[in-house]
Amino acid sequence: MNNKLMLMIPGPTPVPEAALLALAKHPIGHRTSEFSNILAEVTENLKWLHQTQSDVLMLNVSGTGAAEAGIINFLSSGDRILVGSNGKFGERWVEVGQAYGLNVEAITAEWGKPLDPALFAEKLQADTEKQIKAVIITHSETSTGVLNDLETINSHVKEHGEALIIVDAVTSLGAFNLPVDAWGLDVVASGSQKGYMIPPGLGFVSVSPKAWEAYKTAKLPKYYLDLGKYRKSTAKNTTPFTPPVNLIMALHATLRMMKEEGLESIFARHERLKNATRAAIKGLNLPLLGADSCASPAITAVAPQGVEADKIRSLMKKRFDIALAGGQDHLSNKIFRIGHLGFVSDRDILSCIASLEVALSELGYENFTPGAGVAAAARVFSQS
Amino acid sequence: MNNKLMLMIPGPTPVPEAALLALAKHPIGHRTSEFSNILAEVTENLKWLHQTQSDVLMLNVSGTGAAEAGIINFLSSGDRILVGSNGKFGERWVEVGQAYGLNVEAITAEWGKPLDPALFAEKLQADTEKQIKAVIITHSETSTGVLNDLETINSHVKEHGEALIIVDAVTSLGAFNLPVDAWGLDVVASGSQKGYMIPPGLGFVSVSPKAWEAYKTAKLPKYYLDLGKYRKSTAKNTTPFTPPVNLIMALHATLRMMKEEGLESIFARHERLKNATRAAIKGLNLPLLGADSCASPAITAVAPQGVEADKIRSLMKKRFDIALAGGQDHLSNKIFRIGHLGFVSDRDILSCIASLEVALSELGYENFTPGAGVAAAARVFSQS
Repeated sequence: MNNKLMLMIPGPTPVPEAALLALAKHPIGHRTSEFSNILAEVTENLKWLHQTQSDVLMLNVSGTGAAEAGIINFLSSGDRILVGSNGKFGERWVEVGQAYGLNVEAITAEWGKPLDPALFAEKLQADTEKQIKAVIITHSETSTGVLNDLETINSHVKEHGEALIIVDAVTSLGAFNLPVDAWGLDVVASGSQKGYMIPPGLGFVSVSPKAWEAYKTAKLPKYYLDLGKYRKSTAKNTTPFTPPVNLIMALHATLRMMKEEGLESIFARHERLKNATRAAIKGLNLPLLGADSCASPAITAVAPQGVEADKIRSLMKKRFDIALAGGQDHLSNKIFRIGHLGFVSDRDILSCIASLEVALSELGYENFTPGAGVAAAARVFSQS
Repeated sequence: MNNKLMLMIPGPTPVPEAALLALAKHPIGHRTSEFSNILAEVTENLKWLHQTQSDVLMLNVSGTGAAEAGIINFLSSGDRILVGSNGKFGERWVEVGQAYGLNVEAITAEWGKPLDPALFAEKLQADTEKQIKAVIITHSETSTGVLNDLETINSHVKEHGEALIIVDAVTSLGAFNLPVDAWGLDVVASGSQKGYMIPPGLGFVSVSPKAWEAYKTAKLPKYYLDLGKYRKSTAKNTTPFTPPVNLIMALHATLRMMKEEGLESIFARHERLKNATRAAIKGLNLPLLGADSCASPAITAVAPQGVEADKIRSLMKKRFDIALAGGQDHLSNKIFRIGHLGFVSDRDILSCIASLEVALSELGYENFTPGAGVAAAARVFSQS
């Protein structure tokens, strides 16, 4: 049977019907009052989602493009920055900094382990001359399912006083409580194919007043990624360049859905999906890659023993049309990742776990009691 | 009556049903063999459309992002470049060059007039030390409907030998014969919401072997716009960053439609639409902004006398739900622009002109014989 795909990867995530139908509409002109009205509402709702009174800008780029814009708009060649790196995306922001000639210091942790806030505190406290201009943190590391302790790291950045905190929130925004103003997050980057529940193609960057101050003297070259242009246009409910009209119409629909669900419910749902998934995996006696204390609300990485990760993924796809993500780089075939981000319900987790039990059995994995995974997930759902 | 919009602007252009339905499909994972197969066919068809054996790369950006990538990947700070500027987009490439610290020399013409190839010849011939590293030309200037004489300018670039020819073909590719290899065009940038017949969101850049040689020593900083990353991934039928999956599925559909129609038919159709539109405007005794000898196959700009351009646009929208484009910057309210690019048929031109006649009459413009516009367009269609 075709066309019954269930996406359980950390992006693209499942897209609700309202967004699919919006995508299928004939585009309208982007220099019209009709489109400006849509942009005005989208901008308001983006601020609501980011819990900020400051700017949230929308670019026609992937999450990487958004994060790059969030870095290069506020820095100059040679600036010293600290970059947390404990997975594929942390490594990427190190590369971006290097590509632009920044003085990058990577603060690393093993893939699957969280960043140690004390290492940041040490560097920041030692920097009495205030040369560190920014600290870049991947909040939810998509490659490993680790949630870094942004709040504590950010408290050290605040004590430092000079450095900006720049956050890759690609798989945490819309899944985990990230109060941009309350925490004083200067730059937060995200992408549409995650918590936003629409296909890939849009990136978002929130910018604090402090970051706009830094923008004034930042000298890295930019044009398409120049956030000042987006700020100016957004204030007039328009865009500096032709925007991806259909994706924005879809976003218009999903942001309304999110407002209807409410932030607290959204965060509680992701917490519940995470807990149920992790309980189920434990119930199946499969090792989790990361500890519960640093588990991402969006992705659960499993490091199976006695059965190959990619064989599980392959059978899940073939037998049940469920797409799971694999491991990246040195974790390839060592882990599989279950995405539970965005338009994902309790029922989806039950489907996924029940199917996983069948796949494991068919692959000869016998270290579990049939039904134990589903029962463990069910317990979480019954209790929450 | 709602939802009967007819887009006659130079982008977004009308989108055929096959593409709309592809947009409405649930996204699939971008790291799957299913998606790689789509990418492989799309890449082949992009090469066909560009008439090149070299690379055509696809980025998640607007046309401006594609053109910027096409500039910054092949140059270093301080490099001398010539930029043709006779409209909004020519001016934009001057700005991009300046933003990156290039030594930009703008070669200008009045908006509505074509660039003079002799001015390029002069500069290029005088440059015996071969310091000019690139010549940037907007082929079809969207803001004015002027088609610049790329072939002649390029012949001077070829005589120079050192400089790259970088082309903004955003509203010419897929409308006008642009044989990338036969003409030796080093870099050609375009965008999805034009001749490609899908909504905005994708940019394209073709790159010649000579441009790849320049890439090796080019030093401008870049990451998301680094074409080397796209080349590497495209060779493996994948993408360096999460691609806009749904837009690519739509492009997959429209490129098949284009192949079915055939390049010669596509170009002949645009030539016919252009000729019919211009004949009709002349039949209505309305002045055209540009001369026939430099008329874009994609956009016709009209500079009405005795009736305000924006009043015409406004009434055309209100009365017939036909969207026409306005003038930009100093041409605001001085011209209106009829887009006839992409998924536009002979019938659409007849609809547009017939409606325009009604609108002109209602606005008190009496300098034409009712029916004369339609009759002039009909003559072109009957003869071709």
